[in-house]
Amino acid sequence: MIERLSFNQITSKRASLRESVEACARHGVGWIAPWREPAAELGLKESARLIRDCGLRISSLCRGGFFPAPSESERRARIDDNLRAIDEAAELGAPTLVLVCGPAPDRDLDAARAMVARGIEQIADRARQQRVRLGIEPLHPMFAADRSVIVTLSQALDLAAQFDPAVAGVILDVFHLWWDPRLYTELRRTSGRIFGLHVSDWAVPLPGIVTGRSMMGEGVIEIRRIRRAVDETGYTGPIEVEIMNEKIWAQPIDATFYQMIEAFRAFVID
Amino acid sequence: MIERLSFNQITSKRASLRESVEACARHGVGWIAPWREPAAELGLKESARLIRDCGLRISSLCRGGFFPAPSESERRARIDDNLRAIDEAAELGAPTLVLVCGPAPDRDLDAARAMVARGIEQIADRARQQRVRLGIEPLHPMFAADRSVIVTLSQALDLAAQFDPAVAGVILDVFHLWWDPRLYTELRRTSGRIFGLHVSDWAVPLPGIVTGRSMMGEGVIEIRRIRRAVDETGYTGPIEVEIMNEKIWAQPIDATFYQMIEAFRAFVID
Repeated sequence: MIERLSFNQITSKRASLRESVEACARHGVGWIAPWREPAAELGLKESARLIRDCGLRISSLCRGGFFPAPSESERRARIDDNLRAIDEAAELGAPTLVLVCGPAPDRDLDAARAMVARGIEQIADRARQQRVRLGIEPLHPMFAADRSVIVTLSQALDLAAQFDPAVAGVILDVFHLWWDPRLYTELRRTSGRIFGLHVSDWAVPLPGIVTGRSMMGEGVIEIRRIRRAVDETGYTGPIEVEIMNEKIWAQPIDATFYQMIEAFRAFVID
Repeated sequence: MIERLSFNQITSKRASLRESVEACARHGVGWIAPWREPAAELGLKESARLIRDCGLRISSLCRGGFFPAPSESERRARIDDNLRAIDEAAELGAPTLVLVCGPAPDRDLDAARAMVARGIEQIADRARQQRVRLGIEPLHPMFAADRSVIVTLSQALDLAAQFDPAVAGVILDVFHLWWDPRLYTELRRTSGRIFGLHVSDWAVPLPGIVTGRSMMGEGVIEIRRIRRAVDETGYTGPIEVEIMNEKIWAQPIDATFYQMIEAFRAFVID
């Protein structure tokens, strides 16, 4: 069954939120993960109503984060943006805000990592008040220079552990984590901290860096094995298909849905 | 002083070994790391004589490895090639053979990692007899699918620890390791296992994947900090500049040497 399948909206980047929601409804996909910009474009109230009226649930909102910045005032501006993102998630009814934590403003990774911890600390109260969970997403180390200084599950769990488990947890993405020799060991200590699971695949050669993801089954990731290990931790929530890929973006959204549902059945679930 | 600088031959990929050796001599670089193919092209005896006559020492030979393969006979062929590489290193007078361990033949990372351990086991005796050390090089996780299932220092150290420290150790490359939150912690347990240190830089945006490296100073890596931490482990050996970069390959070799020596002084040594 595809009941756990959630459509992350970036997978059809060039479609509006309305087009993505309607495609979900047309293809029997019960979950969606909207991004902030297209939701703002349609209006938050209207986005929430549209999603609800089409019978969909929201798995997460993408995205907050990007905490490190060179000056105190810039870091403050990032905090303000994250507070807005939490409010948007609450208004949409998204249970989780995904955090892409951001790169270092200079070469100092330690300082940037401290800025991430401090940033989450500064938004944790608002998240609690709004009942929006913060999902720290470790990104693949190839994004360490320009997207996230949080790059392993181990590190993301250590960071989340500094906060209330009702507020901070981790988002697992097989594309970001599959290579890690410690993956299965670390999964065993997640205990309730998993707020989401994302799938795609790592094709060889990689079709790009930011746009390097492929449809499940087209690459080398042991997706089903990872999904099973995640299930064993007790996570039973939605599984988002999140693919940034120029070829997929260029095709009709229905083609993407046909491929996605087939691949989800063949390579993700049992 | 640049006395620790070693020129890894791939940095001037389009030059012959003779051209690279002569450039080292012309620019006062005392070490070189030849690759197998160009050394074979000139002939091993002639390569060894040329390098010696120009007053150079060899820091390492690139490269062996690529142990995992789908069948027993293919794995045997890879072992044979590694045995030849060890003999070549001995004939050249290279103290270390760099091992790029290879990707999985399928999706099974655990099996591939076991094939790597078994492969090293099968060549360890020859390495000991020939007095050639095996330098296990963890590669950046972005190469996990097509070049190496060994992707962190932690993992490489665990692997090396299965063998005699006179035979197996690790090659550190800042491009491969800089992102790792555990880097400095892991460096403290290397105790004599460091067989080499490679430098280059991670520029944003990355100019490529295989050819993604830049001259030191052009990216985000805290090269000097890493070099100092490596020094503190007791490693006092050569530091190879190893850069695969189309722009650098396209320029005259003397331009590369001027840039390299300046960057080595400015961003690597104190």
